[in-house]
Amino acid sequence: MSTPIKTIAVLFAMDAEAAPLIAHLALVEAPDAFARSPRAPMKCYAGTLPSGTKVYVVCNGSCVKHNVCNVGTVGAALSAYETCVSLSPDVLVNAGTAGGFAKRGGAVGDVYLGTEFKNFDRRIPIPGYDAYGVGSYEACATPNLAAHLGCKRGVVCTGNSLDATETCRAALEEYGASVKEMEAAAIAHVAHLFDVPLIGVKTITDIVDGPVATQEEFLANLGTAAAALKDVVPKVIEFLDGKLVSEL
Amino acid sequence: MSTPIKTIAVLFAMDAEAAPLIAHLALVEAPDAFARSPRAPMKCYAGTLPSGTKVYVVCNGSCVKHNVCNVGTVGAALSAYETCVSLSPDVLVNAGTAGGFAKRGGAVGDVYLGTEFKNFDRRIPIPGYDAYGVGSYEACATPNLAAHLGCKRGVVCTGNSLDATETCRAALEEYGASVKEMEAAAIAHVAHLFDVPLIGVKTITDIVDGPVATQEEFLANLGTAAAALKDVVPKVIEFLDGKLVSEL
Repeated sequence: MSTPIKTIAVLFAMDAEAAPLIAHLALVEAPDAFARSPRAPMKCYAGTLPSGTKVYVVCNGSCVKHNVCNVGTVGAALSAYETCVSLSPDVLVNAGTAGGFAKRGGAVGDVYLGTEFKNFDRRIPIPGYDAYGVGSYEACATPNLAAHLGCKRGVVCTGNSLDATETCRAALEEYGASVKEMEAAAIAHVAHLFDVPLIGVKTITDIVDGPVATQEEFLANLGTAAAALKDVVPKVIEFLDGKLVSEL
Repeated sequence: MSTPIKTIAVLFAMDAEAAPLIAHLALVEAPDAFARSPRAPMKCYAGTLPSGTKVYVVCNGSCVKHNVCNVGTVGAALSAYETCVSLSPDVLVNAGTAGGFAKRGGAVGDVYLGTEFKNFDRRIPIPGYDAYGVGSYEACATPNLAAHLGCKRGVVCTGNSLDATETCRAALEEYGASVKEMEAAAIAHVAHLFDVPLIGVKTITDIVDGPVATQEEFLANLGTAAAALKDVVPKVIEFLDGKLVSEL
């Protein structure tokens, strides 16, 4: 893309992750954003920066059956798909909390920009399908953004479970994961389909290779990671505004 | 739904699974079916039965990056979503090949109608999210269809891997799986969202609790299971045509 970024869509899995950005930018719920699909669960909040750039925040919404946020790859893929079809963003940002790895220098509260997005729980040992299962989608190159933020960078690995079995851990090791979360690779699949650059911004709630079970650490540190997310995402948007993708 | 079924959408993950039905019903590719989303990967084939009922076959299409069919939950969810938005079917049928279980009486070539759809690889041990992860969507009740077909019935469990780790096997046991495959629970999530009844028709290529690795058995028996699928899916469509959902 050789024109400046004028439309930014930021995708979150959980409402609580999105709320600070919606408040910071004074975005307003846009119930007609996905008007062609009134049963779509995702929620859109919209606003315009002083530069004229449009910002959309899209949350996966709540599962009507289970009354929790639509975390995981299916909810994320549907949100990314509907966002690309209806909002035609110049760039997608997937922001959220995630697990980190002590052996790669990760600590609670760290901010990561993803370099690559891989699925760690899609094992399909048939030639061709094996690579498809992993996915291995490159992130939008963002060396200048990373320098600006002073954040860490690494491979983001996606799976639908909060825990990690030995099989998952072996895949995470093989794929060089610095970040473990539940949505980015599915969004990357959709972003690739629509040829939209994807930036992944993840803040660390728990240490996957640490002594505490993810679900305990996740809940205990959600505040710390949410604060880091609240701090960094507005900076990302400010940096993207009006730049060429090649300048990121 | 208290009106007769006049629009049927049949969702397949793989082109090869769909080809016999497309040929049998002389369906024609409908490139404009998803015109609002020209980058959508799914493919639609359309036709009209002598009764006037519309039949759509939707395949997940190929991954533009990996050049294989978009198997798994993300591709299936996107297909189901776009199908519900663009085609407004009265009923969804998800048909395909799958793994069976000897301990539940399954054998290669068997035909199953799903009674329930559950995810076996979404472990989220946080209250509320645990049930969301599993999903547990009820299938459209089809006692008369099952009697008509003389087929087996059972719980269909969905995951994104062709293999099954010990953790997966424990979940499959806990959920009472008769069928293991890679799409149905994601389609069920979308079908529930759009309040469209879902019927799952699965034919067995391999025995999960047998001695042979799925990927070997899958490829060896794909022909047998595909033949069973080719035989049964037209019977399903013929049975659905013009009936009330409550008559199924």
